[in-house]
Amino acid sequence: MINAAILGFGVVGAGTAEVLSMNSDKITGVLGEELKVKKILDIRDFPDSPFADLVTHDADEVFEDPEISIVVETIGGARIAYEYTKRALSKGKSVVTSNKELVSTHGVELMSIAEANGCCYLYEAAVGGGIPIIRPLHRCLAANRIERIAGIVNGTTNYILTNMRTAGISYDEAIKQAQSKGYAEQNPAADVDGIDAQRKLSIMSSICLEGLYVAPSEIHTTGITAITPEDVEFASEAGCAIKLLAIFENPEDGKPSAFVAPHMVRKTALLASVEDVFNGIVVVGNALGEAMFYGKGAGKLPTASAVAGDVLEVAKAHGKDTGFKNWHASGSEGRVTAEYGSIVTKAVVRTAGGRIDDLKKVFDKYDVEVAVDNDKYSAVFVRGIDHDSLIRLSEASGSVWMNMYE
Amino acid sequence: MINAAILGFGVVGAGTAEVLSMNSDKITGVLGEELKVKKILDIRDFPDSPFADLVTHDADEVFEDPEISIVVETIGGARIAYEYTKRALSKGKSVVTSNKELVSTHGVELMSIAEANGCCYLYEAAVGGGIPIIRPLHRCLAANRIERIAGIVNGTTNYILTNMRTAGISYDEAIKQAQSKGYAEQNPAADVDGIDAQRKLSIMSSICLEGLYVAPSEIHTTGITAITPEDVEFASEAGCAIKLLAIFENPEDGKPSAFVAPHMVRKTALLASVEDVFNGIVVVGNALGEAMFYGKGAGKLPTASAVAGDVLEVAKAHGKDTGFKNWHASGSEGRVTAEYGSIVTKAVVRTAGGRIDDLKKVFDKYDVEVAVDNDKYSAVFVRGIDHDSLIRLSEASGSVWMNMYE
Repeated sequence: MINAAILGFGVVGAGTAEVLSMNSDKITGVLGEELKVKKILDIRDFPDSPFADLVTHDADEVFEDPEISIVVETIGGARIAYEYTKRALSKGKSVVTSNKELVSTHGVELMSIAEANGCCYLYEAAVGGGIPIIRPLHRCLAANRIERIAGIVNGTTNYILTNMRTAGISYDEAIKQAQSKGYAEQNPAADVDGIDAQRKLSIMSSICLEGLYVAPSEIHTTGITAITPEDVEFASEAGCAIKLLAIFENPEDGKPSAFVAPHMVRKTALLASVEDVFNGIVVVGNALGEAMFYGKGAGKLPTASAVAGDVLEVAKAHGKDTGFKNWHASGSEGRVTAEYGSIVTKAVVRTAGGRIDDLKKVFDKYDVEVAVDNDKYSAVFVRGIDHDSLIRLSEASGSVWMNMYE
Repeated sequence: MINAAILGFGVVGAGTAEVLSMNSDKITGVLGEELKVKKILDIRDFPDSPFADLVTHDADEVFEDPEISIVVETIGGARIAYEYTKRALSKGKSVVTSNKELVSTHGVELMSIAEANGCCYLYEAAVGGGIPIIRPLHRCLAANRIERIAGIVNGTTNYILTNMRTAGISYDEAIKQAQSKGYAEQNPAADVDGIDAQRKLSIMSSICLEGLYVAPSEIHTTGITAITPEDVEFASEAGCAIKLLAIFENPEDGKPSAFVAPHMVRKTALLASVEDVFNGIVVVGNALGEAMFYGKGAGKLPTASAVAGDVLEVAKAHGKDTGFKNWHASGSEGRVTAEYGSIVTKAVVRTAGGRIDDLKKVFDKYDVEVAVDNDKYSAVFVRGIDHDSLIRLSEASGSVWMNMYE
């Protein structure tokens, strides 16, 4: 018998209890013994839940119980969750989490505490919800050098952007609809400002750099709040759909880079077909070539499915190596990734109709191609340009730009 | 130092040597020690290869060398590869393979030999080429009941079908082009008759049934050789693209089923966007919901990337449990999955123009919806119908049918 506890009985915590319960026969088969949720720690009571009897308000009942060897942290945030995670790991209890804020902020320290205490800190559910991405990055691609990641990693913003396009509505209307459907929180800042995507990109980048920690604070991030109906309309004319992408690149002969920004995604790219609340993460390895992982990036059962997968992994490993490489800080050198301004990118630059020749001239030092040339818009695809030059030249020519993915 | 040998220096074998060599620094970092290819067994010589010195024609140099603990089998087929795999496993050497024929035919026996000798038999590369799918099915989804798999698992046929549609050419022309580009073999039967897809579906089905072996012979398989330009044209009119799909279903209250057949895939489904030589495998779990794994399903380096990932897994596990569940035969009960005729499916049924009311009437016991109704075609989507009835009613009404995926 393996005993687990769940900290925080919100959507994902309750989903985890449900998944472990509904698939208990399968799980017993996989583990060769029963896995039981022994305690659920929350400040609230849940008298109507089938798990009501397991709820406790006393943290000692979890942390001081030697029978509990696995702790599921689904509290969220980096305060109580941080304290509880440290406490559990210090006691040698492995912790499984869906908390991207905590992993991306304190991952280095928490992984090192886990290692020192012979237990694990696993976080498959922190990126991509139910989509297996963290473990494939670690294991299946262990023999690859990851050259690039391009991901739609936030379902809320993807729903809003999809809806703006298909229903032809404004950002404000779209966010209201997303809130009424439960896809956006009442305070949607972490999603729409790109902070959630930034945290997930911090986690994926740190893995791809073999544990060299990329802090969220060094990831330049632009959200979707400034996207206008005109942007959306123009994107269609240019054969693109607007998507918020988290981009990581690791060129063989240069500094790695990471940023989050709305992108014009060419409709021929598979990522353009990732719609609504779905996530899609493209991974490019030097041997693998391009692969994509697609699925529901959030939601009760999908996220719980990933948490439960980690719980089983820990239960099987009994605290031994699970193939996840610990992160380490870069030391005194400061930032790990390139400055935003120096990152070389592709973009769509647009201005008023009838100015296509001007525009081509402005960017003639770069790989430039006409994107749209009609009464309303003059627009070019520009490739191989750094952000500093892109911003400067767009401003000087009275143009508007957005990153491009093709 | 960990020593490996490669059996069969063809495309994938040579790719594996290349990947292990080009990413050796990364691999040493992951393993904490060096991994070396010590011998390559082949009947040919490769004087121009950088690995020429490692080539041997003497099997004893591999199997009798106690230093070699991992054997990569990239010979293909189920004859010599079968003998060599048994010999390696019997000596306690773990075997990593890309050989879907061998795994799907003799997997039960080979996994049991591996277990008896404290080593592993891994086959991530046998399905989906470089796409991580076998391990995610085993591990990340361990806490899920897999309800359904729908996969484009053969790049050759997908290339042919894509090309028939986009270039408007016949099957015969398309296969010639595929051969000239190296995407189809001179004898393309295993691909175009669906045998390759059948083997891969056998492997995935056996995993999803937690090791209960589904033999290729019980998987009803229809290839793409009978697909006409008219089928392709009609598909477009019905808002579909034709794809060869491998389908596994495991309803909670019924027998599992598996079959391979060309499908009309609704353009709104993500699988319709999986084009050319790419593979896409949709997995539906009872907690996860829908996820898709996408990438290059074949090719030298992508497949080698998966082989190399397994080699690392074995090297880390040192023969211990890698989380892959062994298969077992069903015993005396005969087939594991439902008879083809009884499998409930969806289909598009078409006949000449002007007969839509007839057609609706023929299928009025089922969920029927008008798909196309013009001068040329009368066609309906029929849902919830078993193959036996579908075949009988289509024949009786002078109609043509194809399975549908939406």
